[in-house]
Amino acid sequence: MFDLIILGAGPGGFEAAVTAIRKGLNIAVVEKGKLGGNCLNRACVPTKYFWTGAHILEKIGIFKEYGIMIENFSVDYSKAWEGKEKSISFLRKSISQLFKAKKVPVFKGEGRIIDKNRVKITNEDGTHQIIEGKFILVATGSKPIAIGSLIPDGKYIITTEDYMDTLKELPESILIVGGGVAGCELGYIMKKYGVDVHIVELKDRILPVPFVSQEASKLITRKFKQLGIKMHLGTTVEDFSIDKKINVKLSSGEEIHVDKILLSVGRKPNTDVDDIGIEKDERGFIKTNRYLQTSVENIYACGDVVNSPMLAHIAMYEAKVAVYNILEGNKKEVDYSLIPSAIFTALEIGQIGLTEEQAKEKGLETVTGYFPFMYNDKAVDEHETEGFVRLVFEKSSKRLIGATIVGASASELLHVMEMAVKNQMTAEEIHEFIYFHPSLSEIFAYATYDVAVGKLF
Amino acid sequence: MFDLIILGAGPGGFEAAVTAIRKGLNIAVVEKGKLGGNCLNRACVPTKYFWTGAHILEKIGIFKEYGIMIENFSVDYSKAWEGKEKSISFLRKSISQLFKAKKVPVFKGEGRIIDKNRVKITNEDGTHQIIEGKFILVATGSKPIAIGSLIPDGKYIITTEDYMDTLKELPESILIVGGGVAGCELGYIMKKYGVDVHIVELKDRILPVPFVSQEASKLITRKFKQLGIKMHLGTTVEDFSIDKKINVKLSSGEEIHVDKILLSVGRKPNTDVDDIGIEKDERGFIKTNRYLQTSVENIYACGDVVNSPMLAHIAMYEAKVAVYNILEGNKKEVDYSLIPSAIFTALEIGQIGLTEEQAKEKGLETVTGYFPFMYNDKAVDEHETEGFVRLVFEKSSKRLIGATIVGASASELLHVMEMAVKNQMTAEEIHEFIYFHPSLSEIFAYATYDVAVGKLF
Repeated sequence: MFDLIILGAGPGGFEAAVTAIRKGLNIAVVEKGKLGGNCLNRACVPTKYFWTGAHILEKIGIFKEYGIMIENFSVDYSKAWEGKEKSISFLRKSISQLFKAKKVPVFKGEGRIIDKNRVKITNEDGTHQIIEGKFILVATGSKPIAIGSLIPDGKYIITTEDYMDTLKELPESILIVGGGVAGCELGYIMKKYGVDVHIVELKDRILPVPFVSQEASKLITRKFKQLGIKMHLGTTVEDFSIDKKINVKLSSGEEIHVDKILLSVGRKPNTDVDDIGIEKDERGFIKTNRYLQTSVENIYACGDVVNSPMLAHIAMYEAKVAVYNILEGNKKEVDYSLIPSAIFTALEIGQIGLTEEQAKEKGLETVTGYFPFMYNDKAVDEHETEGFVRLVFEKSSKRLIGATIVGASASELLHVMEMAVKNQMTAEEIHEFIYFHPSLSEIFAYATYDVAVGKLF
Repeated sequence: MFDLIILGAGPGGFEAAVTAIRKGLNIAVVEKGKLGGNCLNRACVPTKYFWTGAHILEKIGIFKEYGIMIENFSVDYSKAWEGKEKSISFLRKSISQLFKAKKVPVFKGEGRIIDKNRVKITNEDGTHQIIEGKFILVATGSKPIAIGSLIPDGKYIITTEDYMDTLKELPESILIVGGGVAGCELGYIMKKYGVDVHIVELKDRILPVPFVSQEASKLITRKFKQLGIKMHLGTTVEDFSIDKKINVKLSSGEEIHVDKILLSVGRKPNTDVDDIGIEKDERGFIKTNRYLQTSVENIYACGDVVNSPMLAHIAMYEAKVAVYNILEGNKKEVDYSLIPSAIFTALEIGQIGLTEEQAKEKGLETVTGYFPFMYNDKAVDEHETEGFVRLVFEKSSKRLIGATIVGASASELLHVMEMAVKNQMTAEEIHEFIYFHPSLSEIFAYATYDVAVGKLF
């Protein structure tokens, strides 16, 4: 009998495995797909791979400012695809090597919990085996959903997973249904690699998620317009027909003709994993208590299968908490009060804590600080002068409660402000903190000036 | 009478001015050179400008991995020079515009304190004027020193300031005397732009400064060797003669022939600024108390003129403290316990707090954590897989006391660990902190695993 059986080897399952191994547990891992899960193979990691290429394309025009004279260059997306495959297979291999080195059995098949200590594995060839564990952790992730009559066929209508699994050559034109994070990320990448990109979004702005401020969304909208990405806001797909092209009729009455439709409208949890009645909520998420324990005492869950933000780093965090609670008895509650978010489009967006809008909704009185990258010395050095930081402070205490960063390295810089929120730092403390000069991080010293010292104008 | 006269408009003087303006003080600024001082015009900022170019040159070979096929390109340093000039003049202009907008008089000349409230300014045309102030802040910076018979002539033997002021075309070959921070930064840049670079260093390693660990220095040494930078360690210049080339005899007996010699052996403070006997120490630094007040009650000092690390961000920090103490009476002591350092060479180095060696010297028992960029998903995405993070914890409390980062964005990432040291965070707290996935910052979660959770091997 294993100490712990982990269903799923995505970010949550892998993190749980590494923690459990370090704690000396005897574990087994069950994974029907590729090691690393969706995140590594079809989402976060390959997206940022392609984004790196898109960002180079964004910047190649300013290389001459550094005396680097590119006489001519061509763009071949299929090579980027190969590079992506090489990179993620390296990372996948590093996972399998670790499991091998630590003698962790990895069962390649679909696991199903048939009683509280037994998992039945259906192998690829249809054969079965049953393994036993004292504890089980469900970390089976999620899959894309379809919408209305837009049923993915893998050819004309594809999901973000089809994109990452099969799209070795880009179409000439595409309609992305859903202007959320994944839609905007892939839309930007495709545009930079030469695709004619349309985005249809039901809401009246792109990135209509609570953690993206109006201010950030507006700047990205402006950039998208400059790039020639066609945004159809407050709009839905009414009808479509497939000839050689896909003829799409939008709710606005407009008709557009594209080669493919990419669905990016959300995901649902993979929670059909048991025969023992583990409790789920009405949306199919596994119910857990604050210790990530399910309705079955020795079975825990983490990641996209539980009703918390569907983010790889949340899965990883929950994995640590779940393994801790398995080992130590339920002692550590999950804490979702401070979750970093980042988006990679025309500019990086980093968000921690509350936006000004969110703070207002909670009835908090706020003061804010602002600084544009334009006057940051390092940003000027790097020709990365677009974007800004907006810091939100609780008015009376002047403690930082949120930060929005739009611009270079926002996805890294946000952790500096996350540390500040976590440690309840005030505007004055953030202002007097010593930042290396010149660094992008100095924007925080400048964005705190108004609140910590006094206004300039 | 002005409330405050600031001598010098470098990073210290400018920061003091901005703070004083925000506090409503009526100030005057005296600057004999360019606004922004050495840092903006001849050191930190232009160095990072050129480094950005050097880094693009370092990476251009992997663009094909993103399907960006550069057919041919050429390198023209003079264009980089022009780009540098454009960038720093934009930043200089933003300073002068701010002063104009706030109606701050800027006296372009050399200021000399002739009594405790009066500064005599010698203008460029030799005329004089005297201004009066309740308080004076000395922020006049520092200048490069020469060594032995190596006297800068601006042509064969140049200083780092000559480099930034005049070197529009690079020589074919150069000998850099001094393998410290500036020598290694400029050596790397020149190598990437095609120069044959020699570095002579008296000590037995490059970057022989206390805040660079052996481990970091070794990695940079290996990279320099791969790049073909010729390092002459434990070596001095014995003699030289100038023909068409400079023939240099080293203490090792080796003879080398170069076009130029760049001196990078240190700086001395510009403290010949008064006729009223402001006290200085034996090395020429202005003596101050913990409030940055000099021996003359109403005169304060900050930056390279006081005996603290000669770093722009220290000057900026001290400027804030000095203005605070001028306004509020001496209440805020300077605190040098946590100073970030970063170096831009073949890889970025970021250092905060103590290295393992420094901790040992202080008699502290330590445990450390390590993680290489090679297995960080975002680093793989960016093809930035060289380097590592080393975290140093105090053994019993497991609180973070230092961090060394060598690799991509080290100069930004270091602030995340600076926040952790500042807030006395433990390995466990740093490990459970939620980092965005995928991000380079996740190296901190992985580098804390051994200490926070348990060892893998």
